[in-house]
Order: sequence, then structure tokens, then C-alpha cells
Amino acid sequence: MLVRAGVELLTEKGFSSTRVDDVLNATGISKGSFYACFDSKQAFGRILIESYASHFNARIDRCLGDGTLPPLRRLLNFVHDARDGMQRHAFRRGCLIGNLGHEVDILPESFNVLLCAILNGWERRVTDCLLEVYGTTPDHGQKQLCAQLARYFWIGWEGAVLRARVEHGPAALDLFATFFFAQAATLLGVASPDPGGTIPPVSPEPPARVKTDPAAG
Amino acid sequence: MLVRAGVELLTEKGFSSTRVDDVLNATGISKGSFYACFDSKQAFGRILIESYASHFNARIDRCLGDGTLPPLRRLLNFVHDARDGMQRHAFRRGCLIGNLGHEVDILPESFNVLLCAILNGWERRVTDCLLEVYGTTPDHGQKQLCAQLARYFWIGWEGAVLRARVEHGPAALDLFATFFFAQAATLLGVASPDPGGTIPPVSPEPPARVKTDPAAG
Repeated sequence: MLVRAGVELLTEKGFSSTRVDDVLNATGISKGSFYACFDSKQAFGRILIESYASHFNARIDRCLGDGTLPPLRRLLNFVHDARDGMQRHAFRRGCLIGNLGHEVDILPESFNVLLCAILNGWERRVTDCLLEVYGTTPDHGQKQLCAQLARYFWIGWEGAVLRARVEHGPAALDLFATFFFAQAATLLGVASPDPGGTIPPVSPEPPARVKTDPAAG
Repeated sequence: MLVRAGVELLTEKGFSSTRVDDVLNATGISKGSFYACFDSKQAFGRILIESYASHFNARIDRCLGDGTLPPLRRLLNFVHDARDGMQRHAFRRGCLIGNLGHEVDILPESFNVLLCAILNGWERRVTDCLLEVYGTTPDHGQKQLCAQLARYFWIGWEGAVLRARVEHGPAALDLFATFFFAQAATLLGVASPDPGGTIPPVSPEPPARVKTDPAAG
């Protein structure tokens, strides 16, 4: 319960702004019990990051591991799955790892190493999935392309998640997916996984702020 | 001086983690003088955001307004200019607007409206620049494409800036630029602005954390 409340707070507020008291208030757990489990807020933070990464890795693996579908279709399924997750929280929650990235210079050094390791793990998963396009013996150039595309995917995805939070809506995720998958399909020489998809029209007006019940987050 | 110190702190730490006392300590200005100028931390925050946006708009305009160069070359010049700016601070500082985006759900509602307006302003600048590819009378489809590409640019750019901060190096910015400009050139039907550029190789190892002197930030 502590870890779940902690992940929720960190995903909305970030590490620096989340006080141990916030976590205790959200769970009704006493300060004594908290410090019986964790030496410090920092130790608690590490557990939260590892818990989030483990949960998220399983989610990625579930989407990317479906060998009955072409690789790009599996990656698009991850995008849809994550989009649905954000929608359930009315786009009030971002990516914990992205949030922490914005705080990186005021976080403990060990957090930074952990963030890089997690991001590398995500990239490796997408790289391995894309490599299946080339069968069992991809050459060096193909390996490089897949690794670069995987990295480009996560760079853009984190930017799209950030924008979706600011706008409280999915349009940025959809725009990102449309451009990314079109380019990836061309570079990999495969069919685009979403032939029926249309790029959402871009409005010159600022998006309306959707007022949501904080309890929904 | 207050505004400059405030922007520096916000760009590194974000709004929630920056206390008014931090700003006073960084400048030697008394609390009394501060509150003579600003009603609240929130009022100060608005001034900082507007000051940053105004500075950044001028920077974008300087790069994109050079009519002697093709549009994509001008946008690439902005990328290089911003990359140089991050390098000067050893990749310890991100984008103030991106940072605030990560805090959006704990910021005052009025900040969110301001962030959306600023992001829309950046998108409009890039849209107008790209539209010059089509001369003086672009059609509806061309306008849509330029607006979508401009939005896709900023989504990916914010993601790349975030990653560059986590990694304390420029590789993510370079990878982003290589993929983005290749796709944009193809879609716009123009030459890529950076024919000599190479995609930086992706290492499977976590990047080394560069230890920097905080005074350099």
C-alpha cells in the first residue's frame, strides 16, 4: 500500500515535492512504521522507482512479446495500452521515469544511474522486438538502425507524454505515433501498422483544460 | 537579478522545489525587498515564465527569421543554438517550460494556460517557417502538414532535452535531429539540411555520468 501510494504521488508530483508526510497521510500509516521499513525518503524512493520499472517492464513485455503480430504492431499496441492508462487517470499522471528525469540534478546520484539503467532496459526491449523484422541473423547496420529507432521512440514518447499531461488529452500521443510509425515502417521496409490511422488535426487554439476530480487520478 | 536567479533555479529545480529563500540566498536580496516587488511566489513565478518565454522567443526568431537560408536549415540552426546553450551548462539545465510541464498538476491553473500559450507560440513560429517551403500561397493540406510537423518537432525536442539532461550529454539531441530532419525533408519534398550529419551510434551501455562543477550550471 505504501509503495502504491508512493508511486502515485511521485508520478503526479515528482520526488522533491513529495514529502514522506504526504505518503503517510495518503495511507494512514504512522511515521514509526514507515521508518521501520525504510531508512530514509531516499531508500523509499529507490523502492518506488524499482517497483514502477518492474510493473512497466511487465507491461512492455506483455505487448512486445506477442509473437503472432508483426513487431511494429506490437509496439503500437504498447502505445495504445499506455494511452489507455493515461486516459484512465484523465491525463493527470505522466511517466515516473520522465518526471524524475526533470529533477535529475537535484536527485541523489544513485537515482540517475538507476534511471539510465531503466531507460536502457526499455530501449533494449524495443530493439529486440524491432530486430525480429530481420529474422534470426540481422547484420550490423540493421542492429544499429533498430537500436537507434528504439532510442528515438523513447525520446519522442517521453516528450509526447509530457505534452499530453500539459494538455490533459491524448492528441500529442496520437500525433507522435502517426509520425513515428510512418517513419519506422519506411526505414524498416515493412508495412505501417496503422494504415487506417489519421493524424489528428492541429488546432491553432490552446487546448481546453479539462477539470478533473483529483480522486480520479 | 532576481528574475535571472529565479529562471536559473526554476530551470534546474522546477517550481515546487524552489523556495523563495533559495532565490533570496542566490541574490542576497532581502525578503522585504522581494515582497515589495512580488505579491507571492506565484506572482514571481509568472514573471519568470514570461521572462524565459520572451528570451526564448527571441532566440527562436533569430534562428528562424534568417530568410537567406532554407526553412529546415534555419530550424536546424535553432537546434544547434539550443544544443550549444545546454552544453555551456554541462547539460544540467533543461527547458523551463518542459520542467513546468512535469509539475503541471501541482501548479496553479493559470500557469497551465500560460504554458499552453507559450508552446502554441513556439509551434506557430516553426509552422510559419516551414510554410515558406511552399511560397506565398500554401494550400490547406500543406498548412496542415507544416502545423503537424511543427508540433511533432516540439514534442520530440522536449523529450530529447529531457534525455540529454539525464545523460548529461548531447547524444539524444543529435539522434532526435537526425531522424526528425530526415522525415521532415521527405514529407516537405526538400533536401535534408544536414547531408553531412551522421546518426550517433547507440551504445548498449548506460552513458557515463559526467561530474560537473555546480558553479558551471
